[in-house]
Amino acid sequence: MSGLSGTKRTTLRRSREQARTDPASLYDVLRAGYVCHLGVLVDDAPMVVPTVYGFDDEHIYVHGSVASRSLTRPDAVVCVTVTVVDGLVLARSLFEHTVNYRSAMIYGVPRVLQNPGEKLAALRILTEHVTPGQWDYARRPNKRELAATTLLAVSLAEASVKVRSGPPDDADSPDAALGLWAGELPLRYAFDTPVPDPALPAGIEVPPHVAGRHHPA
Amino acid sequence: MSGLSGTKRTTLRRSREQARTDPASLYDVLRAGYVCHLGVLVDDAPMVVPTVYGFDDEHIYVHGSVASRSLTRPDAVVCVTVTVVDGLVLARSLFEHTVNYRSAMIYGVPRVLQNPGEKLAALRILTEHVTPGQWDYARRPNKRELAATTLLAVSLAEASVKVRSGPPDDADSPDAALGLWAGELPLRYAFDTPVPDPALPAGIEVPPHVAGRHHPA
Repeated sequence: MSGLSGTKRTTLRRSREQARTDPASLYDVLRAGYVCHLGVLVDDAPMVVPTVYGFDDEHIYVHGSVASRSLTRPDAVVCVTVTVVDGLVLARSLFEHTVNYRSAMIYGVPRVLQNPGEKLAALRILTEHVTPGQWDYARRPNKRELAATTLLAVSLAEASVKVRSGPPDDADSPDAALGLWAGELPLRYAFDTPVPDPALPAGIEVPPHVAGRHHPA
Repeated sequence: MSGLSGTKRTTLRRSREQARTDPASLYDVLRAGYVCHLGVLVDDAPMVVPTVYGFDDEHIYVHGSVASRSLTRPDAVVCVTVTVVDGLVLARSLFEHTVNYRSAMIYGVPRVLQNPGEKLAALRILTEHVTPGQWDYARRPNKRELAATTLLAVSLAEASVKVRSGPPDDADSPDAALGLWAGELPLRYAFDTPVPDPALPAGIEVPPHVAGRHHPA
């Protein structure tokens, strides 16, 4: 992808300084998240459902069972939003309080994948994004399971990215004279020690690709 | 609130075992998150924007500047979704892979708060939810700032809650014989050490209500 589009709905009207227009920024956000929020139209009202996703250069693939009931109109546009919250920004004034985050918003008409080979390829991308290593470790879907899996592909062509980072914006304001503490409270995400299924027989070790995701502090 | 409603769109069709129908479950989810995903209708397409929120017994209050351009139709329903991801569920089969999460979905016609007293009360609720202690510590909004702040109130009357927790569901399936590891990879969120604004003069200590949110591992 050579550049993010600038259609009316993906051209940011507010906070222009936070907009990113390069595909690398989009991929960075998509790489950092696990769950997206998929917005679809149901009976003329928006419905926002959380679901896992994966992506390649051109598409985001979302697990779409929950949303499938909305896909009765073949031309219906959906909005896929991925948000990673990096911290809370505490300013001198409440008005300047904000959040450090990275967010991507993707608009497109989803394609419901039908071809088994194509579905398997998308499921592999999704699996390896959320749980890297599991595609080769766990049992892959059989025909029945694959048929029961709804996968949507949405083009990344119409997307916008917003990023906010760093300290609050009121260091140069009269509020600096208040002598209040200001700064960022970073939010950290980490995988904890894997919890084995209680039904697991003794002697089955946590495989390295799972154990390796836990980073002791 | 005595009970969550069971309208068509908030009655869960899938995964019924994950549905919760008591208000306490709704409050639990709302208490656990900081950022919601607000779904609004813009030019007949759904738009999903992340934003901070607060709540009381009857309403969720969202910071609605980004969404305000969509609120041209006074009867437009919005969907507010709050999702907390608790971990990844690794099963023996990829088909049974899932996510442990808590999610609330709230539908309603938002009311844009106009009365300054009402706006201030909602902003206090929002501030104390996201950054407890800051309402009394930081400088509160003046008239101009309050006028420039858009706050939406959405009733909690039409809401659904979904919760998934625990091990994967294929311990009793033929896949158990595969001898594969299965379990949960818990995801932990924690506030890191507060990062002072580099512009801060020496000698201003991190106040206890901020420092207290960092829990060393």
